[in-house]
Amino acid sequence: MKKETKISHAVIRRMPRYRRYLNDLQKKGVSKISSSEFSRLIGYTASQIRQDFNNFGGFGQQGYGYNVTALHNEISLILGLDKEYKMVVIGAGNLGQAIVNYTYYYKSGFVVKGIFEINPELIGKKINGIEIFDYAYLEEYVRKNKIDIGIICTTKDNAQEATDKLSDAGIKGIWNFAPVDVGVSEKIAINNVHLSDSLHSLAYYINRRND
Amino acid sequence: MKKETKISHAVIRRMPRYRRYLNDLQKKGVSKISSSEFSRLIGYTASQIRQDFNNFGGFGQQGYGYNVTALHNEISLILGLDKEYKMVVIGAGNLGQAIVNYTYYYKSGFVVKGIFEINPELIGKKINGIEIFDYAYLEEYVRKNKIDIGIICTTKDNAQEATDKLSDAGIKGIWNFAPVDVGVSEKIAINNVHLSDSLHSLAYYINRRND
Repeated sequence: MKKETKISHAVIRRMPRYRRYLNDLQKKGVSKISSSEFSRLIGYTASQIRQDFNNFGGFGQQGYGYNVTALHNEISLILGLDKEYKMVVIGAGNLGQAIVNYTYYYKSGFVVKGIFEINPELIGKKINGIEIFDYAYLEEYVRKNKIDIGIICTTKDNAQEATDKLSDAGIKGIWNFAPVDVGVSEKIAINNVHLSDSLHSLAYYINRRND
Repeated sequence: MKKETKISHAVIRRMPRYRRYLNDLQKKGVSKISSSEFSRLIGYTASQIRQDFNNFGGFGQQGYGYNVTALHNEISLILGLDKEYKMVVIGAGNLGQAIVNYTYYYKSGFVVKGIFEINPELIGKKINGIEIFDYAYLEEYVRKNKIDIGIICTTKDNAQEATDKLSDAGIKGIWNFAPVDVGVSEKIAINNVHLSDSLHSLAYYINRRND
């Protein structure tokens, strides 16, 4: 694999999707797939797929196709999914509970270690067996337990403050579900998720169905 | 506003984001913004912003900037956010509960009317005041209540079947959270959401932080 140069966000965003489809193919017992078959399946052009993979040195042999398991494993390594990530959730309200429930599905790789909350009525309780701690101890906990990812499930008004606290404590990545974009220094990885954006674009397509 | 031609998915996906930023500006009492100020704020180039808006006939006056409220309202209309959408959630497990909790945040516009489940232990219970019904009555309910959007929160294996049932009952849009892409006829709008894709690309950036 050649040395990776700066790869565009669009390519990186497509990699988890490739991996998901390869995972499904593996489960169906498919061992090889051509770029044109893969193209039909995933909905990108074969040329797009080849270009994307060329960013990482390319994985296919001309006229042979891709080895499904090898490609799945390569992409997993590129994404860093061979490692385990320790996470904390900030905010134990509806949104925080939702995310803790959701991440519970990941069998390994991404583990929620603790939930942090300011509401004294919630502190000490558990969600899916994970304890809710006092928000005042967030920095100390993150530092001591070498937490990798902070999941922001606070209100809009508290999202940046929580992000700053996590940043100061040495967090590596922020996964933000609060309904506002938060900012971090360039050293920290960030994904701002806005579920409502997805629902709003769905509304657009619902109204244009009969055009 | 000129007649809309076929507009790319990328443009449509950016519109809810523009709207969010305009909403925040409104709340801060900002009434006008230039495309270059808007560019700095939202992180797209000024030329990109102008191009995006030109798809809808353009909203700005040269050398004057955008009227924040007018632009917010225009985008809301384009997305169809002046209407109310009736929704059902399929699956009352961890994921379904998470999504019901999450959509609870929308004060209006998108309303969950019912949750459908096969597990008899959950049928008849409520989540956030919304009743869990027997999945056997899904089609009848959707038809009778003119439901617009079906939110798929089933397991991977049941997602397509639930989608097909909703399609047969005349659903207009599918918002799919099951960890598999589902297919629909061209008449139905669909957004497949994969939260794990977002987490996996975050893992990539965490590992590339020190490059």
